[in-house]
Amino acid sequence: MTKKPLILITNDDGINAPGLRKLISLVKHLGEIIVIASEHPMSGMAHAVTIQNPLRVRLLTEETDYKEYLTTGTPVDNVKLGKHKLASRLPDLILSGINHGSNAAVNIIYSGTMGAVLEGAIDRVPGIGFSLDDFSPHADFSHVDVYVIAITKKVLREGLPKGVCLNVNFPLNSSEPLKGIKVCRQADARWIEEFEERQDPHGRTYYWLAGRFENGDDRNDTDEKALADNYVSVVPSHTDFTAHDYVNKLDFSL
Amino acid sequence: MTKKPLILITNDDGINAPGLRKLISLVKHLGEIIVIASEHPMSGMAHAVTIQNPLRVRLLTEETDYKEYLTTGTPVDNVKLGKHKLASRLPDLILSGINHGSNAAVNIIYSGTMGAVLEGAIDRVPGIGFSLDDFSPHADFSHVDVYVIAITKKVLREGLPKGVCLNVNFPLNSSEPLKGIKVCRQADARWIEEFEERQDPHGRTYYWLAGRFENGDDRNDTDEKALADNYVSVVPSHTDFTAHDYVNKLDFSL
Repeated sequence: MTKKPLILITNDDGINAPGLRKLISLVKHLGEIIVIASEHPMSGMAHAVTIQNPLRVRLLTEETDYKEYLTTGTPVDNVKLGKHKLASRLPDLILSGINHGSNAAVNIIYSGTMGAVLEGAIDRVPGIGFSLDDFSPHADFSHVDVYVIAITKKVLREGLPKGVCLNVNFPLNSSEPLKGIKVCRQADARWIEEFEERQDPHGRTYYWLAGRFENGDDRNDTDEKALADNYVSVVPSHTDFTAHDYVNKLDFSL
Repeated sequence: MTKKPLILITNDDGINAPGLRKLISLVKHLGEIIVIASEHPMSGMAHAVTIQNPLRVRLLTEETDYKEYLTTGTPVDNVKLGKHKLASRLPDLILSGINHGSNAAVNIIYSGTMGAVLEGAIDRVPGIGFSLDDFSPHADFSHVDVYVIAITKKVLREGLPKGVCLNVNFPLNSSEPLKGIKVCRQADARWIEEFEERQDPHGRTYYWLAGRFENGDDRNDTDEKALADNYVSVVPSHTDFTAHDYVNKLDFSL
């Protein structure tokens, strides 16, 4: 009998997020599952790791081929804990999400959801981050089922290139059915930020980050374009930040 | 008279770190300086942003062409605060560091120092992260002066390609003088982690992240190789995580 694949599942919206529950329900039958998720929401935690403080871990659920852990760590901490402490072996696959909010374009760099998956890529563990372009805690995930299952099964069957993970984003559910999957590049878009300046009850100023997302990238092969056209976007992603075009062009001889 | 360039300086070791003080002392004469640094050490905070909580800011020092702010934010928050609230205009250059510890290879993804600089790159502000391969708070920075000043002056004069920033790392100070600068690629290296499992005074288990760095990348053109050969490594870096080689090779049609 072939051993079941070991699938580590995490997210960045915390252990009780509907998106995480949805993801678990969709893939639970595909392998031995270990869920390691954070007590608190970790949106915007990117690739942060906890160095200054110790981590706490609590086993919440233990069934045949299913364990669920609650931690005080970040999404990347959760993957590290899984790889090195809580799982019996290196996972065969890391799944993260389903995030409440898009991680397309530059959002990948702020994303705890994708931080977890990129952490797997460093150790050559294939991973998929799933995100829905809807920040609402009551987001409608009903249109994603067939895609989450199909993409997960394909990666379990065929793997991914060495060091590569997938950043998968779903458009909002609408009256139109999804048109399919597009493999694309990360759009060159960004947040136009503002800080709201407020006074606390003691008269002291504080600042709250706010902003709107702006896509100035009009190429046809980006994740933002795929989402706008009602496709599921899949961006193969990696942790090499080198701007290779410039390695041989920049001259810093003194 | 030409306006002085506006230089935003931050780091991830906190406002009192010797590396930050060193960086300020080296570049203070090159422009109008705004220092925005965190109250607490922010090592390992990567590209984290503060969404759930408000930020506090305190003006510590104000002199002609020099301001210093203390904040409760992450390095990326500090750049956002600078760009959108504390500086009179978009900075001409962002400098970060000098970090106590290498940010070569995969360390860039965990690094608050480089998070700050990459955040600038998103907005097309040239940036340079400086790091020394020595974690000690008493690290010896005496060999870096000429390089920090030369690289900063060159970028102020010529700029950087759109969306590109520099990840600059210095070898430990040794009896041998530095051999010069090498522009190179990010090495494909990683941390082999372990978690130390301990008991608190109440008998409850906690985990502390520990590990050792392992470079399995034997190519000649990497930052790790340059550092090992006693060169200053300069990696042009960007925020496009797309694994471009695979965009047209992966097929996810259902």
